Amino acid sequence: MSDSIKLAVAGLGTVGVGTIELLDKQSDLLMERSGKRIEIVAVGARDKSKDRGVDLSKFEWFDDPVDMAKNASADVFVELIGGSEGPAKNACEAAIAAGRHVVTANKALIAEHGTALAVAAEKADVVLAYEAAVAGGIPVIKALREGLAGNRIQRLQGILNGTCNYILTTMRETGRSFDDVLSEAQELGYAEADPSFDIDGVDAAHKLAILTSVAFGTEVDFASVHIEGIRHIAVEDIEYAGEFGYKIKLLGICERTAHGIQQRVHPAMVPEEAPIAGVEGVFNAVVTEGDFVGTTVLEGRGAGAGPTASAVVSDIVDIAAGRLVHAFGVPAGALEPSAPASLDDHSGSYYVRLMVDDQPGVFAEIAAELAKHEISIEGVIQRSRSETEAVPVVMTTHETSEAAIKEVLSAFDALDAVREKPHMIRIESF
Amino acid sequence: MSDSIKLAVAGLGTVGVGTIELLDKQSDLLMERSGKRIEIVAVGARDKSKDRGVDLSKFEWFDDPVDMAKNASADVFVELIGGSEGPAKNACEAAIAAGRHVVTANKALIAEHGTALAVAAEKADVVLAYEAAVAGGIPVIKALREGLAGNRIQRLQGILNGTCNYILTTMRETGRSFDDVLSEAQELGYAEADPSFDIDGVDAAHKLAILTSVAFGTEVDFASVHIEGIRHIAVEDIEYAGEFGYKIKLLGICERTAHGIQQRVHPAMVPEEAPIAGVEGVFNAVVTEGDFVGTTVLEGRGAGAGPTASAVVSDIVDIAAGRLVHAFGVPAGALEPSAPASLDDHSGSYYVRLMVDDQPGVFAEIAAELAKHEISIEGVIQRSRSETEAVPVVMTTHETSEAAIKEVLSAFDALDAVREKPHMIRIESF
Repeated sequence: MSDSIKLAVAGLGTVGVGTIELLDKQSDLLMERSGKRIEIVAVGARDKSKDRGVDLSKFEWFDDPVDMAKNASADVFVELIGGSEGPAKNACEAAIAAGRHVVTANKALIAEHGTALAVAAEKADVVLAYEAAVAGGIPVIKALREGLAGNRIQRLQGILNGTCNYILTTMRETGRSFDDVLSEAQELGYAEADPSFDIDGVDAAHKLAILTSVAFGTEVDFASVHIEGIRHIAVEDIEYAGEFGYKIKLLGICERTAHGIQQRVHPAMVPEEAPIAGVEGVFNAVVTEGDFVGTTVLEGRGAGAGPTASAVVSDIVDIAAGRLVHAFGVPAGALEPSAPASLDDHSGSYYVRLMVDDQPGVFAEIAAELAKHEISIEGVIQRSRSETEAVPVVMTTHETSEAAIKEVLSAFDALDAVREKPHMIRIESF
Repeated sequence: MSDSIKLAVAGLGTVGVGTIELLDKQSDLLMERSGKRIEIVAVGARDKSKDRGVDLSKFEWFDDPVDMAKNASADVFVELIGGSEGPAKNACEAAIAAGRHVVTANKALIAEHGTALAVAAEKADVVLAYEAAVAGGIPVIKALREGLAGNRIQRLQGILNGTCNYILTTMRETGRSFDDVLSEAQELGYAEADPSFDIDGVDAAHKLAILTSVAFGTEVDFASVHIEGIRHIAVEDIEYAGEFGYKIKLLGICERTAHGIQQRVHPAMVPEEAPIAGVEGVFNAVVTEGDFVGTTVLEGRGAGAGPTASAVVSDIVDIAAGRLVHAFGVPAGALEPSAPASLDDHSGSYYVRLMVDDQPGVFAEIAAELAKHEISIEGVIQRSRSETEAVPVVMTTHETSEAAIKEVLSAFDALDAVREKPHMIRIESF
């Protein structure tokens, strides 16, 4: 074996530049930890002329990542371009075909094509590593795949999107509206100009699909993730949640159920005293339940140049040190089909807010519908406000089925006294 | 390489039996994850006749762990005996000398002899693995050594002893005294009949010494850990902490300072909103600060058969899979001497409770002593209660030095109006 390991880095955004800076600053430390000199030999991005604040003159330049993946004299191809299709995917496939290890921070790519890439990597006898794709600097893939290797995981719950967690935290702390806080997050750089990937839950769903595969040893199945975002969360809901002892978080949850594997991303109420409720602002966290280890919580910065570079480099150090691992913890051929469970089979508790006319008999109508669907109420908040404006009726239910809740919400919506589409948020236990 | 890996398990207490049960229950899963069949070939303990609830008849029996370490036909010697000296140490040394990998849950052994054992293991080209020695099932050694390998760690703070955390949590929740809660913890099996190792901070100090070495790449230096336990914590201190917005936790802290590496275990006040403040009961947690990754928190069950077996097996799986790593993350010969910093050079904020005669002028005397030592007060709680009984004067200070606090506490103690030895608890920021 050579005493150095050579990298080709494709993509020079904040994560690419952060990775180059980390490798430079910690080179002695990394040599001690990996046993090899870790050396960048090639870099590339779309625009060579852009000033990125780091000296790239000593590296071979490639305009085309596929060309780089094929032809750079590197042991490891580091893909920091992003996107599930196009250059990132083509370049990773080309690198694997050329017998190079692949380290990527690309959650969309692994969520959409992880199984196929893992199969290709194993055929080529190279590593496919993606610690940076999930939860930034938190070593959650390593923890699940190696640190908890003795466990069957029953359930995993995560705060997987820092933008959403920042918005929900700020709404609660300031009482400001979603739109208002989103604008601020965009100004601060916590949210993209087009924020839909984050706030509609797609980014969290990408990460959840990857975690599900590692946790359960199943093929990556992004298409089966039930996805709801946070656009519809009102400040009132956050306030009522507090009155019931909950905080609202956008969670990604995967669970083995009698009906199959359930993957869902949606806003959820979590008990204020649960560890995950204390995860605020841009922080991410992952809570796992293993049959021997019990509950484990991992928390840290889920995004940003430093944390993401930290994760990218941990994968590189493992490869340099010869610590090789199957992409999803077991041979790609041994991954089971995902056998998705329908969300209709989910059962849990629910928060429901109705905006109703403040008239006699309205609550009796609501209660009758609940009884008809065999849903029992756990708590209610009702305050009269006005004879002309709609007033809120807010309730939490005991455990019931998603199917029953869907039906009762339709029934509520059909009542004359109900003025707005009913608001529902799932309640999660921890 | 063979398609199986053979284990000899020494020590059949709850962790030993838990490990045997885990290996049996998850054998197919572990084969997929490690690529090998993991097979116990030998077991041993002091008393062969004892019924442990598992079938041991298929394994070769050894009464003497050193004999087992030398002569069992095993690839890995799993040491679950405990104790820093005697059979555990002799057996681990013998196993290494015989060219066998060592997996241990023995924190005292690694804290006292970790460097020497790591040197011996590297000479013999075998692994010394001890994930189970620190924080039970939480994969904190792996996270620090591999997952955060790209970072220089600045500081690490941990709740490392579940017994102490259970006692402090219960005291706060119930208002009951230390002695009362300790007795209950002993009945529940959360505390040993002789609880001194736990409540005097020695167990936490063993774990801290190991974490320090992994975090900073320094020789294990248990002797330099400043250790204070929780026997002197009064319910009043916990209540006053709450009034100032703090909880009291037994923390293990290691930090790179200008004066060297500081290692200390003592009760500390932590802000109620800090993630570590939410770690209650028997749970453990470790908070690390890395230069690229920022703050990372790992939390989980710090003891018990299941969590500890989970950690033991993760080490075995790594060895079986050929994922080898230096015991402390870097070659044992590259570990730096620990260069301990004196606690006198520590600076921070402090909580002080004085029990004084309720007389005019007492507070002026106290204030004069503080001024003389250039210590400024952040907050004070003083309540008159009685002309005959001592009344508390409770204060928190702005940042000052440990040396100054020690001097002022001596000065307070010498005042006629001060009835008891002053109570001091350090305040930690997060």
